[in-house]
Amino acid sequence: MTVFAKILAGEIPCHRVHEDEHVLAFLDVAPLSPGHVLLIPKEARATLGELSDETGAALGRVLPRICRAVCAATGATDYNVLQNNGASAHQAVMHVHFHVIPRVGGRGLGLEWSTGDHGDDPERLATAIALALDT
Amino acid sequence: MTVFAKILAGEIPCHRVHEDEHVLAFLDVAPLSPGHVLLIPKEARATLGELSDETGAALGRVLPRICRAVCAATGATDYNVLQNNGASAHQAVMHVHFHVIPRVGGRGLGLEWSTGDHGDDPERLATAIALALDT
Repeated sequence: MTVFAKILAGEIPCHRVHEDEHVLAFLDVAPLSPGHVLLIPKEARATLGELSDETGAALGRVLPRICRAVCAATGATDYNVLQNNGASAHQAVMHVHFHVIPRVGGRGLGLEWSTGDHGDDPERLATAIALALDT
Repeated sequence: MTVFAKILAGEIPCHRVHEDEHVLAFLDVAPLSPGHVLLIPKEARATLGELSDETGAALGRVLPRICRAVCAATGATDYNVLQNNGASAHQAVMHVHFHVIPRVGGRGLGLEWSTGDHGDDPERLATAIALALDT
């Protein structure tokens, strides 16, 4: 049972900011900046790709509202939304979570951006992704 | 007019992977890893917080499918979903976009994770966010 499942079950307290039928949002206990919020589905899945269309839509529907509310409460204008899947992609808790991380007083999310290419045949790769999407 | 608006208008080509009434997904031209996809709403807004519930839901609904398809096509198991808002949060194109970035052969998204706290009164901050969400 993950720490987020325990929060959902009420076994661990949290600073709650939003709850509806499908999702819960609360302050991250180890924030990158003041107002760093986590948004999680109530459905216990490790990665985003495991979610149903409906749960994905429920998360997406509330994300803009949470962004606006975090900005209103913190005074931030800039912010990052981040969702990590798998240990090598920095996921620490194996229950889907979106980070909403405002830029506050120089604090926030730091990124390393090292670009490359898609390999020899980007169109073939795009087609492979498109075909996988249709199945 | 942003480069993404030009892509939506068909004025600039892209390697398309998905399109529906509300969204378009295509390969990032400067990928962090092979298969790095961008998902954008057709609604031209700079930041996630400016989107309607409906557009947010349309993006959220397709995100799990895109994650699965990117993994299927690239062989990746781990990946990051990132959405930047504002120049100080590393946003380069001022049209909402979600990055789906697979970990492929050591390539992918690099993060700097410097945690702190929410200040003196986390509960007060959570309440301020919750109140802003209800308005």
